[in-house]
Amino acid sequence: MRPAIVLLSGGLDSATVLAIARAEGFECHALSVDYGQRHRAELDAAARVAASLGAASHRTVVLDLRLFGGSALTDLSIEVPTSPSKGIPVTYVPARNTIFLSLALALAEVTRADDIFAGMNAIDFSGYPDCRPQYIEAFERMANLATKRAVEGSPLAIHTPIIQCGKAEIIRRGRTLGVDFAMTVSCYQADAQGRACGRCDSCRLRREGFAATGIPDPTGYQP
Amino acid sequence: MRPAIVLLSGGLDSATVLAIARAEGFECHALSVDYGQRHRAELDAAARVAASLGAASHRTVVLDLRLFGGSALTDLSIEVPTSPSKGIPVTYVPARNTIFLSLALALAEVTRADDIFAGMNAIDFSGYPDCRPQYIEAFERMANLATKRAVEGSPLAIHTPIIQCGKAEIIRRGRTLGVDFAMTVSCYQADAQGRACGRCDSCRLRREGFAATGIPDPTGYQP
Repeated sequence: MRPAIVLLSGGLDSATVLAIARAEGFECHALSVDYGQRHRAELDAAARVAASLGAASHRTVVLDLRLFGGSALTDLSIEVPTSPSKGIPVTYVPARNTIFLSLALALAEVTRADDIFAGMNAIDFSGYPDCRPQYIEAFERMANLATKRAVEGSPLAIHTPIIQCGKAEIIRRGRTLGVDFAMTVSCYQADAQGRACGRCDSCRLRREGFAATGIPDPTGYQP
Repeated sequence: MRPAIVLLSGGLDSATVLAIARAEGFECHALSVDYGQRHRAELDAAARVAASLGAASHRTVVLDLRLFGGSALTDLSIEVPTSPSKGIPVTYVPARNTIFLSLALALAEVTRADDIFAGMNAIDFSGYPDCRPQYIEAFERMANLATKRAVEGSPLAIHTPIIQCGKAEIIRRGRTLGVDFAMTVSCYQADAQGRACGRCDSCRLRREGFAATGIPDPTGYQP
């Protein structure tokens, strides 16, 4: 089996991406990042999801982005919004996807993987600059100049199989591939048990997605 | 003063780059990374250098790349070579510069800096793919699509002022700008006091550089 790196947050989207990579026959090395996020229950979810979907390995890198702040997800003094906002949301973490893809790139080099899978989505997160296809293409181009493969290896491909999918489509696809969504945590401010707030952007998108599919929403909500 | 981010390792090259950025009139926010490197005395050196060259701030991000391994600098089971090797040296850390520049990108966004300074060098480190100008250009292009500035900001520039300089030229330039090289630590396996081994590639380049300038080498060597 060909090895691939899969960025795994523990949320619904990246769980589906892991299932897609597995269905395509890759030996999946899952990578999560403990970046000081509010929703730390996501990291426990990532471990459960990696095991249940047959990842060959799962690593969690510790990188405390709270040193930088600048986002509602890493700075407790910035509130998580509970209604949709215009422009770039305050939940955007500066350069997060670039940092995560860079870490995946390092792991790809060490494990001799030529493929990285990531769950960016240009529909739900239209306000996040680092979820757009032209950004992914530019990262891939840079990555192919950055590492040993530029000199002596084969090219690297970054797969973002759900980048153009709506939430309902992602849920249908994940379900077909055996993702247990009850295991996943997407809420920006889940509690320690992983129960969702039901009010943040991420909860709203998830709830609307399940409603649109007719599949029962297995999310555990805070009382 | 315009803010800039300066990647500062504590070595001779990045100290000179900080001095160049200061001389160009930037308010310099220095960023170091504690990535589990062997030569941890570099991090102490970075703090001394940042203070002595008037950096406006100095942050050290902790990111343990030992989880990945794959380099003599992060994996104690791989020996640091003491003679020049062909191809990419084992001291190359997978995707290190991409990870470091990504962290600088995050800090640039938070501090509203449009400039990042870094000490990559294509001459000394000709075997490192991520020290070449075409890599830097690709990173800059990606970075300008990755962050808020793609949507609402001004473009980001990555400055690598010593990328085409030989070690002697860097030393002359740093000296003119007041860098105290005795403060810096470049050795791949410096001891806890920051004393250099005198045998690794980095020591060899540094020693040859000082010899070529006629400037006395202030490096403290291990007994």
